[in-house]
Amino acid sequence: MPRFEPKNPDYLKVATATFDRQQAMRTLGISMLWIEAGEVELSMPFAADWTQQNGFVHAGIITAGLDTACGIAAFTLMPSGSDVLTVEFKTNLLAPAKGDRFTFRAGVIKPGRTLTVCEARAFALADGVVTLIATMTGTLMAMTRRG
Amino acid sequence: MPRFEPKNPDYLKVATATFDRQQAMRTLGISMLWIEAGEVELSMPFAADWTQQNGFVHAGIITAGLDTACGIAAFTLMPSGSDVLTVEFKTNLLAPAKGDRFTFRAGVIKPGRTLTVCEARAFALADGVVTLIATMTGTLMAMTRRG
Amino acid sequence: MPRFEPKNPDYLKVATATFDRQQAMRTLGISMLWIEAGEVELSMPFAADWTQQNGFVHAGIITAGLDTACGIAAFTLMPSGSDVLTVEFKTNLLAPAKGDRFTFRAGVIKPGRTLTVCEARAFALADGVVTLIATMTGTLMAMTRRG
Amino acid sequence: MPRFEPKNPDYLKVATATFDRQQAMRTLGISMLWIEAGEVELSMPFAADWTQQNGFVHAGIITAGLDTACGIAAFTLMPSGSDVLTVEFKTNLLAPAKGDRFTFRAGVIKPGRTLTVCEARAFALADGVVTLIATMTGTLMAMTRRG
Repeated sequence: MPRFEPKNPDYLKVATATFDRQQAMRTLGISMLWIEAGEVELSMPFAADWTQQNGFVHAGIITAGLDTACGIAAFTLMPSGSDVLTVEFKTNLLAPAKGDRFTFRAGVIKPGRTLTVCEARAFALADGVVTLIATMTGTLMAMTRRG
Repeated sequence: MPRFEPKNPDYLKVATATFDRQQAMRTLGISMLWIEAGEVELSMPFAADWTQQNGFVHAGIITAGLDTACGIAAFTLMPSGSDVLTVEFKTNLLAPAKGDRFTFRAGVIKPGRTLTVCEARAFALADGVVTLIATMTGTLMAMTRRG
Repeated sequence: MPRFEPKNPDYLKVATATFDRQQAMRTLGISMLWIEAGEVELSMPFAADWTQQNGFVHAGIITAGLDTACGIAAFTLMPSGSDVLTVEFKTNLLAPAKGDRFTFRAGVIKPGRTLTVCEARAFALADGVVTLIATMTGTLMAMTRRG
Repeated sequence: MPRFEPKNPDYLKVATATFDRQQAMRTLGISMLWIEAGEVELSMPFAADWTQQNGFVHAGIITAGLDTACGIAAFTLMPSGSDVLTVEFKTNLLAPAKGDRFTFRAGVIKPGRTLTVCEARAFALADGVVTLIATMTGTLMAMTRRG
């Protein structure tokens, strides 16, 4: 049972469609593992293309996963005809982004008519061990979709 | 004349080498425009590969440019034998990342033995107009380089 | 000459009145040094009442000064009939809040119909020396004033 | 059973003593409800002295409670002879700070030799109803205590 009551009966369809329209997610190989009202989890394989100077995944790429997870989680609770926009986010890097696969879990902590606040966590999976590597708190805005 | 006195006489060489070792920067087409003690500017062309659902560059990719700019700016002031690590950052998105080219300018506002604080700004260039699109405040840590 | 064009011709009067209605500012002894469209500077004397375990002013009290400075700076650019609300802020503590007097300078970096982003800096004054002790980036929201 | 293993066998004593040395906490009437390794909860009564222009408690005062809660939670896991210092924090204000009493709950999410990351939440209690009003993510640093 979802903790939040979505306003848009088609929330799963429109949230999934918004995710699918993000070319950056395809480029990064990020897919959606599951989605519910106010919650989403994404998954990304490791690729050397996204590494920084020590061979770990770049903090900006981890942030891309966290930000999209927050955006889609917030979007599930927005009314029909909305678009979602990131206002700001804050990320703490807790451990090196080192692993075969990464997941990004986001949840709404305060939905609102205009602004929605989400929290997200990034995990690295390496040899069957899951490590919390980063956190995000983000503010998302509902915009009326144009056209 | 630099505002800060670098501790490492080879700071330009090691900072440039650290930037060059970031595979993510090559993948994103990000290059270094200039570098000084405590300051750096990077440049990135637009590519559809990095866009979100509205065709603008994804906030995570803008964050990748801002974070690397902060990291390299901080690194220029760190002692010889250091490695640089991002502790945390906060980004405000001020306008859509819409343009032909993007620049990321970072400057140290407080260097320290362990922690260095930087501020950075991202600009979009479209049809000769420069627009401030994002800001970052970031905390970077000096680590003793292994091996 | 102000960088921003205020929408409310009475912006100085209403911004000053909003500051004056903050009982917390009176309790902390914070006064307004100057105000312009999109900019404000506040001043606070040291008091042992606000100290933490090492005798420096508590980070929350420094944050109170920074947040009010951001709020009033943002408010000067909001239309008539607005109220201002803090959405979020991020503070970096750069040096101990140690001094006889503290100032808080805020400026709008992006005004908006709904959201305004400000940056602020806190300085300590001790024996004629001014030290940057903290920075804030904050997001403020314009609300229609009730009643 | 605590989730974290404290390094200092006297952690409850020294953490409580550090809290007690904060004059700002006494001035604000903030008391400690409970403390464990890596976790703490503080409580503050409403007082008109701390209000902003709408009669709600000022965001800086709420931040003072959240920051001290994070600092004490982090401090319980630091080795003997440490002092704790706030590096930075980020606060989202989710609802007006309106109530008879406020609580601040903090927990360590990543302890470290030098840096510890905490999350905290502020709640308002009004007429028996508890409302989440603010969140904080903060970075704390262990310093060797002087003298």
